Amino acid sequence: MTEQLTVTYHLHCQPGESVEAKARDIGLEQTIELSYELARERDWLGYAGRVETLDHLYGDTYRAVLHYPAEAVGGELSQLLNLLFGNISLKDGIEVTAIDWPRTLLRQLGGPGHGIAGLRQACNAPDRALLCTALKPMGLSPAELADVARGFALGGVDIIKDDHGLANQPAAPFRERLEACQQAVQAANAETGGRSLYFPNVTASRGTLERRVALAAEAGCRGVLLCPMLTGLDTLGWVRDEFGLAIMAHPSLTGSYFRPEHGIRPELLLGEIFRTAGADASIYPNVGGRFGFTATTCQAINDRLRAPLGPLRAALPTIGGGVSVTDIGHWLDRYGSDTIFLIGGSLYAQGDISAAAAKLIRELEHRHV
Amino acid sequence: MTEQLTVTYHLHCQPGESVEAKARDIGLEQTIELSYELARERDWLGYAGRVETLDHLYGDTYRAVLHYPAEAVGGELSQLLNLLFGNISLKDGIEVTAIDWPRTLLRQLGGPGHGIAGLRQACNAPDRALLCTALKPMGLSPAELADVARGFALGGVDIIKDDHGLANQPAAPFRERLEACQQAVQAANAETGGRSLYFPNVTASRGTLERRVALAAEAGCRGVLLCPMLTGLDTLGWVRDEFGLAIMAHPSLTGSYFRPEHGIRPELLLGEIFRTAGADASIYPNVGGRFGFTATTCQAINDRLRAPLGPLRAALPTIGGGVSVTDIGHWLDRYGSDTIFLIGGSLYAQGDISAAAAKLIRELEHRHV
Repeated sequence: MTEQLTVTYHLHCQPGESVEAKARDIGLEQTIELSYELARERDWLGYAGRVETLDHLYGDTYRAVLHYPAEAVGGELSQLLNLLFGNISLKDGIEVTAIDWPRTLLRQLGGPGHGIAGLRQACNAPDRALLCTALKPMGLSPAELADVARGFALGGVDIIKDDHGLANQPAAPFRERLEACQQAVQAANAETGGRSLYFPNVTASRGTLERRVALAAEAGCRGVLLCPMLTGLDTLGWVRDEFGLAIMAHPSLTGSYFRPEHGIRPELLLGEIFRTAGADASIYPNVGGRFGFTATTCQAINDRLRAPLGPLRAALPTIGGGVSVTDIGHWLDRYGSDTIFLIGGSLYAQGDISAAAAKLIRELEHRHV
Repeated sequence: MTEQLTVTYHLHCQPGESVEAKARDIGLEQTIELSYELARERDWLGYAGRVETLDHLYGDTYRAVLHYPAEAVGGELSQLLNLLFGNISLKDGIEVTAIDWPRTLLRQLGGPGHGIAGLRQACNAPDRALLCTALKPMGLSPAELADVARGFALGGVDIIKDDHGLANQPAAPFRERLEACQQAVQAANAETGGRSLYFPNVTASRGTLERRVALAAEAGCRGVLLCPMLTGLDTLGWVRDEFGLAIMAHPSLTGSYFRPEHGIRPELLLGEIFRTAGADASIYPNVGGRFGFTATTCQAINDRLRAPLGPLRAALPTIGGGVSVTDIGHWLDRYGSDTIFLIGGSLYAQGDISAAAAKLIRELEHRHV
């Protein structure tokens, strides 16, 4: 039997707009790109998406479920994104809200290479929630950033990642920064017996990205930070397959997909799609911070990263965007221990970053017990 | 003197929101990601964006101009996107409306490898507007698609591109499709003495993309179709530099950046940024077609693709998304001859596609004279 890719949309109609036509047009626009009449006349509807159900939700909003033959994707992530939202991103009133994945496609895409269990093992933290921070700001030298990294590692931060804006700026070129920070973290680990990990930001153009990931692996890093919407989403699976490194995904440039009545739901893009593509951990901005996600959205992202999904490993929600040292307990109670807390600015504001980090780790351990 | 990257935003404020704080926060969020107070105290403001001017436009809308040190980009396209809209894509009421490019950065990014003059030469059409069409629909076999390609080439279509949804589906795997279509177009050219070009869609994951571009070059194709938001925007420059092929860029997945009061203006993303990254031609959906661009936006995209921009070549606007065979004359009068008209469905609806294409070419030639 032919496998189906089932996609659910919320459709928001303008006055006078036919929801039946809007739903049917999605199935054509995203596949054969021809009018229904012409395609039917020529017997060209084979790969078109078909509306299976169409229900009224409220006001001018409807839920449409479309079936696409899995062959229309051809096992490729870029074509999956194309089919999900490529052309209709240019239309109004369409939100992709759910995907029912063909099992074959999940196997082809592969998901996290390490997952929750793998990241916990790498950090030597089998049970408690993990603590992450970001090296910043751009403008510091490699020695200065390494000094900050050392401070965090002495405090026991599990994952010390580059700020996603650290690239190859003259103040701290990638290679010098990588070597200085990784050595600083390893030296601190040797002092404390801890196992802090440094994840450099390898986001870059094709060839440069490849060199940076290779340098990170050579330097002994266990993982890297990537911005998938900048490098192409398939880069996640490529780093997983070619280098075996763990991957923390950053949501840079994704916010445009989360607009009112338009886009791909955050839990789908930052949760399910990033996980399916190969993210072991996915960063998102917490409710109540500098960005606008709701509590429901945050919980939904957590669920989509952790819940069973065919043969794929579970991934770790990484809660950032303004989480403060003072309220980590609250968020831990709410989100549970299969979570990474990414605390940046609020840690920097503490005088002694090592002591502040150590206190947070104790809080995560204590609450776990 | 330090070079500046100058970015203009339109800011839309909620009641009670301070536009001064909103503008200042952009300069911090997109660079150092720390609070102003902390960064000032530690002397960490060096790479932060600074608000140069802030003007009231109308209602709750303001124009902010920020200066960033060019070093914050470090000459990398991925970091440029990051700085332009990475994190603030997750905030409300921010539109990037203009970029004043540092000349060094333009040189680093390079722009079109062929440009308008190069594409005209490849098509042997020194003066008139160019005609493009798309091979479709997905679901046809390589032989069937090649038959369609032959029909278009016999009619003299300048560029016959794959539909952007043609990837590696079982009905027409990439390699078989490439070979069949390229041979069909070359054979038709040999019959007519014409110079139709076939641009296969090479959009795919990293390694696969590389193989597909190499196969296209080997097969004698002069250009390819790419969806930059699926492959990473830097792929444009990579194809230009590694293979020397001409590149037509497709706007798949870009529509989310063009939302009301949010995003990157279409003329900036599909015009200036795609051109700067290396597109020789940039497809966009015309006003009055299936998508919602205004006449002003369409004209602005044309301008940004063609106007002088440092040392960069000019690129060709490629007008699609529902342009019909019956109104090409109207659009030609409006847009001028440095334009590619992309006509798909409306050509397929003609009985004899060769005759219909030939008629369009005559119209483009006639109107030019």
